[in-house]
Amino acid sequence: MKDIKILAFDVFGTVVDWHTTVSREIKKLYPEIDGDEFARAWRDGYQPAMQRVTSGELGWKILDDLHRMILDEILERIKCTSLAENEKQHLNKVWHRLEPWPDTVAGLTRLKSKYTICPLSNGNIGLLADMAKHGGLPWDCILSAEIFEKYKPHPETYLGVAKIFDVSPGEVLMVAAHQDDLDGARACGLKTAYIERPAEFGPTRTKDVSPKPENTLHAKSIIHLATLLGC
Amino acid sequence: MKDIKILAFDVFGTVVDWHTTVSREIKKLYPEIDGDEFARAWRDGYQPAMQRVTSGELGWKILDDLHRMILDEILERIKCTSLAENEKQHLNKVWHRLEPWPDTVAGLTRLKSKYTICPLSNGNIGLLADMAKHGGLPWDCILSAEIFEKYKPHPETYLGVAKIFDVSPGEVLMVAAHQDDLDGARACGLKTAYIERPAEFGPTRTKDVSPKPENTLHAKSIIHLATLLGC
Repeated sequence: MKDIKILAFDVFGTVVDWHTTVSREIKKLYPEIDGDEFARAWRDGYQPAMQRVTSGELGWKILDDLHRMILDEILERIKCTSLAENEKQHLNKVWHRLEPWPDTVAGLTRLKSKYTICPLSNGNIGLLADMAKHGGLPWDCILSAEIFEKYKPHPETYLGVAKIFDVSPGEVLMVAAHQDDLDGARACGLKTAYIERPAEFGPTRTKDVSPKPENTLHAKSIIHLATLLGC
Repeated sequence: MKDIKILAFDVFGTVVDWHTTVSREIKKLYPEIDGDEFARAWRDGYQPAMQRVTSGELGWKILDDLHRMILDEILERIKCTSLAENEKQHLNKVWHRLEPWPDTVAGLTRLKSKYTICPLSNGNIGLLADMAKHGGLPWDCILSAEIFEKYKPHPETYLGVAKIFDVSPGEVLMVAAHQDDLDGARACGLKTAYIERPAEFGPTRTKDVSPKPENTLHAKSIIHLATLLGC
């Protein structure tokens, strides 16, 4: 653990609460539809859309563009035709306005005193910069799939963090609320920390947050991670 | 001016005082040689080295690697053979430890309240992140030639800022202490602000800091720029 120099964070679900922010905006726009379900449907389209990029079916597309593709599909499926183009563009950028979990800013601020902290997210750079400004996330630097033109869990993303900071993979700690992300990082030699986010999918979809012994650390929150790392 | 949303800063000479920091470290290592001249020789090797990348003679190389090539050439030329490999690696990273000009942090902090602020530097991402942490530079995001694999003044770098933030080129203000950098940005449709840094090259090499009417703004410091922009 004393080798760790860089902390790379997954963002959606780990650092910010996408479900609450997205469902709240949907409920304001469409009081008659189920905002919780809409938010989950949008998020559920995320992995298949990235898979279409990774497989080569689509060329490289940033996440804003994938979010828009998924949004258009949902709106068509549920026959919502009331939004003008500029309103759809604004709604699509709800992912730039996600709120941090209550422990996030305090936890990151403590961790920043001892480590270089950055996101390693599939979100594009502009999305992550807007989100950081909106939520006061004190990143030292913003790393994104957009830099590598590869989505996690592609090894180039995890190894890219080590390369950019000129450290070995074992000097990077990947922090995420998703075991598959941590599995990808571990396979590249990174250390891993799991963060419990049982409410990630909202009040009606439960999430298994049990520890996995392969991870270097397991924390209940980012503040708890700071304590575990002596910050 | 009210269209401006993003401020992109040149770094070496504009935000940080490379000459003072580099010459100070050289003087400590080699009291017998002229640290001012060494610092300028290192910096003078910068444009020709980038030109070798831009021309295609070298493949893509980050600035840390170019700095090391130039350093090795200077050390050989002046017959300094006393440094071990790890000492050369440490010295090469002096560019990660450059000190901000006295007005930089206060000026950036004011500008950040109204704009998204980022470097657009030929320095690599790790260099810029280390420098920001060392000097307390409050960037919202770090943009670098490394993202585009092109060095300024390549148009992809300036247009890349607008693309990343999903704004038009005219909504980006390029800030630099070098007219050629601003010329490149202006040719791409960006707005431009010149910062006077008469001492950039140290006490013995003078620098013309006279205004050029083509620039959108001309400021004596980053604090002065904040005042001009109403921050």
